[in-house]
Amino acid sequence: MDTRNIEALLRIISTLLLALTACLVRFDSQTKHLFYTLTKKATFKDMNALYVLVWIDTAVAIYSVLQLVRYMILPGFRKDLTASNKYFGWGIYLLDQAAAYVVFGGNTAAVQASMFAVTGEKSLQWMKLCNRFTRFCTQIGGALVCGYIAAIVMAITSSISAYALFRLYSPNNFLVLKGK
Amino acid sequence: MDTRNIEALLRIISTLLLALTACLVRFDSQTKHLFYTLTKKATFKDMNALYVLVWIDTAVAIYSVLQLVRYMILPGFRKDLTASNKYFGWGIYLLDQAAAYVVFGGNTAAVQASMFAVTGEKSLQWMKLCNRFTRFCTQIGGALVCGYIAAIVMAITSSISAYALFRLYSPNNFLVLKGK
Repeated sequence: MDTRNIEALLRIISTLLLALTACLVRFDSQTKHLFYTLTKKATFKDMNALYVLVWIDTAVAIYSVLQLVRYMILPGFRKDLTASNKYFGWGIYLLDQAAAYVVFGGNTAAVQASMFAVTGEKSLQWMKLCNRFTRFCTQIGGALVCGYIAAIVMAITSSISAYALFRLYSPNNFLVLKGK
Repeated sequence: MDTRNIEALLRIISTLLLALTACLVRFDSQTKHLFYTLTKKATFKDMNALYVLVWIDTAVAIYSVLQLVRYMILPGFRKDLTASNKYFGWGIYLLDQAAAYVVFGGNTAAVQASMFAVTGEKSLQWMKLCNRFTRFCTQIGGALVCGYIAAIVMAITSSISAYALFRLYSPNNFLVLKGK
């Protein structure tokens, strides 16, 4: 099995997981009656971290699709990287790294923000909210698990990009390409 | 310049930055008079994310020191990786990746938690606190900037570990070592 095929498969998986995460967070809402006629609706806009997460996951999913399009349409890039397009390989590697860290970071920020909603923070007098909006919080929790799986898949993808790029270099000389 | 020397330099820098971050957060405290005799002392223990960050940064700083010790004491590992110790190279690469993601994630969670303390979250009735504990919050902010620089340095270190490992492999066959 070629690195390019594994890479394409991983990109499809991460695109689907990112889209799923974004949709689960975006379309999550729960309305609760507090007193007589007073109702409160919980949505992803109540927390900045969730709002940012939806944008990050959407953007990175589009990036993954673009990478797949490159793989499927441009015939020159279906083959393994060679010395002649190593700068292209560097670009893909750096973008993949950045994408993996951005998804991981956005997800971690959302988990941290949600933790406050689950447990509250007594010393700062922040009250917990998930005891009232249970279904809403469960759906967010599921979305964040998906998001972490996507981040792990993207970390593996960036390792494969690193492998495809760095194996072009000589093991004896620093940053010198290996002769064929 | 050899990869091993760049790697050692980056590890020294990240150890220092991680230790600095951990100390800045750990020893930050501010006492404020609220009413007549009522005082409130802000420390890193008020927020779980900061508490976890101190532990993460301390643990990863110790890991970096151990990597430096390996580099300085064991003569066999001062040379570049060769095909004979490639499994060792895989171990270092995976540990470096994990360390970089853990530091980045811990720091991002702390930033997210601190954002609530700076801005509050009106829709959830969480009040901001940094208008009262300004000096405390400024020191935490400085620590988190250090933490992010450390995370970037560690990401570069793990790229170098990837380079040192993957350049041993053949560019034509999948996961086959290149002949000398």
